[in-house]
Amino acid sequence: MKKKRIMVINPLGQDTFDAPQKAYLEEAKSDNVEVEVVSLQRGPHHLEYHYYDALVGIDLLHTIKQAEKESYDAAVIACFNDPFLYEAREICHRLVITAPAQASLQLATVFGDRFSIIVGRNKWIPVMRQNVYKYGCADKLASFRSLGLGVLDFHNDESCTLNRLKTEARKAVEEDGAEVVILGCTAQFGFYKNLQQMLGAPVIDVMLAAFKQAEFFVDLRDHFGWMPSKIGGYETPPIKEIAGWGLEEQYGIQGLWTGEK
Amino acid sequence: MKKKRIMVINPLGQDTFDAPQKAYLEEAKSDNVEVEVVSLQRGPHHLEYHYYDALVGIDLLHTIKQAEKESYDAAVIACFNDPFLYEAREICHRLVITAPAQASLQLATVFGDRFSIIVGRNKWIPVMRQNVYKYGCADKLASFRSLGLGVLDFHNDESCTLNRLKTEARKAVEEDGAEVVILGCTAQFGFYKNLQQMLGAPVIDVMLAAFKQAEFFVDLRDHFGWMPSKIGGYETPPIKEIAGWGLEEQYGIQGLWTGEK
Amino acid sequence: MKKKRIMVINPLGQDTFDAPQKAYLEEAKSDNVEVEVVSLQRGPHHLEYHYYDALVGIDLLHTIKQAEKESYDAAVIACFNDPFLYEAREICHRLVITAPAQASLQLATVFGDRFSIIVGRNKWIPVMRQNVYKYGCADKLASFRSLGLGVLDFHNDESCTLNRLKTEARKAVEEDGAEVVILGCTAQFGFYKNLQQMLGAPVIDVMLAAFKQAEFFVDLRDHFGWMPSKIGGYETPPIKEIAGWGLEEQYGIQGLWTGEK
Amino acid sequence: MKKKRIMVINPLGQDTFDAPQKAYLEEAKSDNVEVEVVSLQRGPHHLEYHYYDALVGIDLLHTIKQAEKESYDAAVIACFNDPFLYEAREICHRLVITAPAQASLQLATVFGDRFSIIVGRNKWIPVMRQNVYKYGCADKLASFRSLGLGVLDFHNDESCTLNRLKTEARKAVEEDGAEVVILGCTAQFGFYKNLQQMLGAPVIDVMLAAFKQAEFFVDLRDHFGWMPSKIGGYETPPIKEIAGWGLEEQYGIQGLWTGEK
Amino acid sequence: MKKKRIMVINPLGQDTFDAPQKAYLEEAKSDNVEVEVVSLQRGPHHLEYHYYDALVGIDLLHTIKQAEKESYDAAVIACFNDPFLYEAREICHRLVITAPAQASLQLATVFGDRFSIIVGRNKWIPVMRQNVYKYGCADKLASFRSLGLGVLDFHNDESCTLNRLKTEARKAVEEDGAEVVILGCTAQFGFYKNLQQMLGAPVIDVMLAAFKQAEFFVDLRDHFGWMPSKIGGYETPPIKEIAGWGLEEQYGIQGLWTGEK
Amino acid sequence: MKKKRIMVINPLGQDTFDAPQKAYLEEAKSDNVEVEVVSLQRGPHHLEYHYYDALVGIDLLHTIKQAEKESYDAAVIACFNDPFLYEAREICHRLVITAPAQASLQLATVFGDRFSIIVGRNKWIPVMRQNVYKYGCADKLASFRSLGLGVLDFHNDESCTLNRLKTEARKAVEEDGAEVVILGCTAQFGFYKNLQQMLGAPVIDVMLAAFKQAEFFVDLRDHFGWMPSKIGGYETPPIKEIAGWGLEEQYGIQGLWTGEK
Repeated sequence: MKKKRIMVINPLGQDTFDAPQKAYLEEAKSDNVEVEVVSLQRGPHHLEYHYYDALVGIDLLHTIKQAEKESYDAAVIACFNDPFLYEAREICHRLVITAPAQASLQLATVFGDRFSIIVGRNKWIPVMRQNVYKYGCADKLASFRSLGLGVLDFHNDESCTLNRLKTEARKAVEEDGAEVVILGCTAQFGFYKNLQQMLGAPVIDVMLAAFKQAEFFVDLRDHFGWMPSKIGGYETPPIKEIAGWGLEEQYGIQGLWTGEK
Repeated sequence: MKKKRIMVINPLGQDTFDAPQKAYLEEAKSDNVEVEVVSLQRGPHHLEYHYYDALVGIDLLHTIKQAEKESYDAAVIACFNDPFLYEAREICHRLVITAPAQASLQLATVFGDRFSIIVGRNKWIPVMRQNVYKYGCADKLASFRSLGLGVLDFHNDESCTLNRLKTEARKAVEEDGAEVVILGCTAQFGFYKNLQQMLGAPVIDVMLAAFKQAEFFVDLRDHFGWMPSKIGGYETPPIKEIAGWGLEEQYGIQGLWTGEK
Repeated sequence: MKKKRIMVINPLGQDTFDAPQKAYLEEAKSDNVEVEVVSLQRGPHHLEYHYYDALVGIDLLHTIKQAEKESYDAAVIACFNDPFLYEAREICHRLVITAPAQASLQLATVFGDRFSIIVGRNKWIPVMRQNVYKYGCADKLASFRSLGLGVLDFHNDESCTLNRLKTEARKAVEEDGAEVVILGCTAQFGFYKNLQQMLGAPVIDVMLAAFKQAEFFVDLRDHFGWMPSKIGGYETPPIKEIAGWGLEEQYGIQGLWTGEK
Repeated sequence: MKKKRIMVINPLGQDTFDAPQKAYLEEAKSDNVEVEVVSLQRGPHHLEYHYYDALVGIDLLHTIKQAEKESYDAAVIACFNDPFLYEAREICHRLVITAPAQASLQLATVFGDRFSIIVGRNKWIPVMRQNVYKYGCADKLASFRSLGLGVLDFHNDESCTLNRLKTEARKAVEEDGAEVVILGCTAQFGFYKNLQQMLGAPVIDVMLAAFKQAEFFVDLRDHFGWMPSKIGGYETPPIKEIAGWGLEEQYGIQGLWTGEK
Repeated sequence: MKKKRIMVINPLGQDTFDAPQKAYLEEAKSDNVEVEVVSLQRGPHHLEYHYYDALVGIDLLHTIKQAEKESYDAAVIACFNDPFLYEAREICHRLVITAPAQASLQLATVFGDRFSIIVGRNKWIPVMRQNVYKYGCADKLASFRSLGLGVLDFHNDESCTLNRLKTEARKAVEEDGAEVVILGCTAQFGFYKNLQQMLGAPVIDVMLAAFKQAEFFVDLRDHFGWMPSKIGGYETPPIKEIAGWGLEEQYGIQGLWTGEK
Repeated sequence: MKKKRIMVINPLGQDTFDAPQKAYLEEAKSDNVEVEVVSLQRGPHHLEYHYYDALVGIDLLHTIKQAEKESYDAAVIACFNDPFLYEAREICHRLVITAPAQASLQLATVFGDRFSIIVGRNKWIPVMRQNVYKYGCADKLASFRSLGLGVLDFHNDESCTLNRLKTEARKAVEEDGAEVVILGCTAQFGFYKNLQQMLGAPVIDVMLAAFKQAEFFVDLRDHFGWMPSKIGGYETPPIKEIAGWGLEEQYGIQGLWTGEK
């Protein structure tokens, strides 16, 4: 049987995380799956600001559209803000698309009564709380807790990071009543096992959550044809408009929409 | 590799659905999975009433506990009311447990902006709406629509059922703004494909949704150790109490809790 | 005038609480009311676990159905989880049924802006919060506070229990902004007066709240015919099904549904 | 035993409803209760407008305060807007105060999954919906339905009114999914029995609901000392301020606050 | 061009705040605006109690109605409880009416993710929280914080007040996660600048917020005819009723409704 | 006094709307304001799809940043989806930024109890409903109603558009209970007056609402220093990162962040 191909996209203009995440996901993937981790040709090195999110939008979406063209089975948007997730589902027909916040919140609400999200900096909280509300999980949110670390700091001194994570995870459980802990950044990969053992409670690695959900959704698509509905908010824009307005030329994506598949 | 074993439990005192559902799930299951469909030794023939739900509780939970003892990997509670789902997760440690409403609502909120649930009779709606709220999907509910059919009627005249389903599904989309349709009863299995083709939009078969979620959760358990948290609402009752109060004798389940595994 | 008869049911397989609660309620009841307190023939000694709740369901409901048959006026389900309240209302026609959480939450939202619930152990909170949401009181919940005591501990050392209650009640008021305190377990009976005097604020004894609501609802039934609606979620299951499926034999309740009234 | 005295206040400058409502309540009251129905010395003849509500506030509150002074046990504010209910609870210490919307919404959410409110005119809906939200019943509201009749029209042609009520109540049940119907105006008294019989479902007469809740709360006060909390939102204004600012003179209520009790 | 005239009404029976607030608003107003600050002929000196709110209702509304008659462009209700705001909008046709809570909550939700409200005493919180919910801002409320000061204390020792404000504002930001601070009483005027400079974050003076919103709404009215809708909850009571029932005589407002304009 | 300069940005790759909207806003602006309407160098001709939104993000934000650099006072994002509003507030310090949905929803909730939004096509509804929820207005939403017209159709046959608008606006009022109507697309400019006259109720032109709110916020900024808080979600990204990663070169905006102001 042909293997399923899943592309993980770090929506960043640097590839630091690509290799270690690929190694990490190779351990986690199913046998019939191939994983590739890519980043963008340009862009900020993390997405701690709304502006950085906005900057990567076009390239991220075109990378995803290209992945569909190249017959990938799924794309994973590797940022806990879930940037451009709805947009991505809109432009694709066959490609499964997942993202860490939606994937891990669904698990967290199954695995316990309430959850806490451990973020790097307080700055991240508003956009994440917005997502918690949007995904219907507000009643289940025990707390946000912040490490005082930026995205690029997590793997500088991993034992220091782990210590801070332990401190905040413990407080989430003991003071805030969390039964599940979510590590609220894809760059926090690699820490969940230690924490989980310490807490005796599920700790969600959001990178893994999104990746495995992608595998799951590919399976659902292949068996039952279940994919995002195209009769409403995810209706795909018409080629006629894209071609008629010259969007491919304007955004340097000649043939992406109109070329052969 | 040893196959994963999933037990689907029709929480009913009749086995009419067992064989056809097993055949149905054989088509849907992953290669490394074995499926068994069982029903109870006694009980009502459907769960359209709260009372019937309550009647099957003990036997359902003990069947699940026994499945864990026999090293099944997962149990699926085959009723869209999700009866005793939390109780089941409380009494098990290694066994994955899923149920149709939680499983299919999570899919529906991913696959579209709003969904409708097609029920058999209006009587069912209150308990289902309660679940929609509990699972955080209230804002996404477009409507309930009712067929005027009981659980046991769906497969009496399948073409009649399909026609009614088509009528209500179409109204859900056109009048209520649904982008996804959920067939709100495990006994509505087998109809989704036709409807999906007609609508051009995802139609969730809740039996399949729960079954495939079970496969998915077994995978998550085996890879990452993710299971319902045992530090809060899902803490398992202590053997000491169960033995000390003689519950096994009282409920005819000698050795279920205290016997060898 | 014939006295109204109210049966209070401890849904437990032990009768420790029956006598003291009967004495307690004798003080509280109206003149035209007779009170009886019963427990079950079998079952756990407390309901701190979902599983224990599930175990008592059938016997609790059949005790209630029997009470209706014996022309009781009301039944009170004596556990703050409100186990099987909706199921009980579904199977009865004339019998009033009340339960502590619904009864006391209604009072608390009348008697103050926000309330706190004092529980025995953190384990109880998820199911109770679920009820707070279900009953529409989420916005009025100031906090849960936990005593670190099990159901069976409350009356072991009453002065110790009272001290812990005082500590937590005071914190609920001073730190959490509660104006009303709910003692979140029927086994916490007997403490409210002391606490109320200390706080200068209403402290709801949930056993009393449920019992007096039962008296009130009997009055409404007798004067105005107001009872749970039978045209929706509380529609009673048909005798034809119960008899046809042999449920009475299967569950050892011969004649309960089909026998003479 | 001394009888309990309950004053029902029509917050109106006309006494048309006083006599028939007194007769009506005499039928409904408990044996140990005396009922009095009064209206105000001045004021509008109905409260269909916010402004009319505001006009009656001072006189209504002072009538209530006077009732407390004269040792009444309870006062019932006879308007479904629940005007000045919180204010009334703030200024009293021993007097029970109830109002129709709070009383009947509590009943409706017990007696069924969802309810509809039948109003006279669409104009009333915003203030009533606001109350439905404030009392935590938004999820249970099936619909508002309007008769196209003003407060003063209900008893002009009672058979016409009854017919319109029947039409709308039936639609509430059949089209909106209501299991309980609330007659959303105290001037709709007298119609509930007919409607209830026709529907086979509870129809709440809001005047009766408020009156019987007053009896109930007097009982709770006398047995357990449960009354609105005075440590928060219902803290009573200090006599020192009222006297110091000359409020009694300014509002023509000499001695009401400062006089002998 | 004729200047726009805005009347600010302290709904109090004392004029202490009138002159300083007029001076304050003179600094803040637009060039084409004239400001007048008035208080009532009678009434309490602050509105910390529901009862005091109720007492001023009639005089406040009639002052507003008179302002409309005298061709003022706007009236500002100078109390953070927003007393009688909806009533005022109901009785006017051309006069713009604003109030501090609605005005400042709209700004706070634009200027940051979450806000805190600093109140004088805990007693105020219930009515204010009610407003936060009513205005749709519940998800954005970080906290209430209390100064332990009454309305009349704020300007007794302004440096003491400022110190307390600084302490609580800082805690709101650092402990509660507020990005915006609202000074929850019109009598807290004059402190915002200092606080804003200290915090480096917006601090909303609610008096200014309501006043400038009045200017804004006058502009919208004059340009586009946008005013409160008269086809629903703000429908004005009919003169025929007011005259027919003799309300003008009863409340000492001869000619206010029926006189020449 | 120097005039305030407001830039209205059609986030589109065509300038069709620029001239008529400028003329339209010249009529609406305050005397001390200058208005400019611009569109983008490239991009889709409407934003009916998520993808089109994403495409314009970078150019829109850089146009806004450039406007701040050129000392404009405000920028208005001329699309009812409010694309990139939070991002824009994040990157600016002194420039006021407004958008149509936030501006008009705030007005609608002031001017009536409930509002309806008239959209062009059903496709638009999910993203708009999301905004209605995000802005805290869910309880006030009466309905969405759709014209069956695309953005580019509104001004093709204006009398046809007006007729459809009249039909849907009337239904919104009569069937859905709306008191206020919002024209949910900036391209629906020019129709509100006619509709408003017909309905006798406020009809919000969202272009005007956003523009006037910009004027209002400039006034608040200049008088009180009120601007989006920079201590949380709107914290601006650091120049050090932008320069260090070479973002200006990568996105063709040399000097925009690092150049002289």
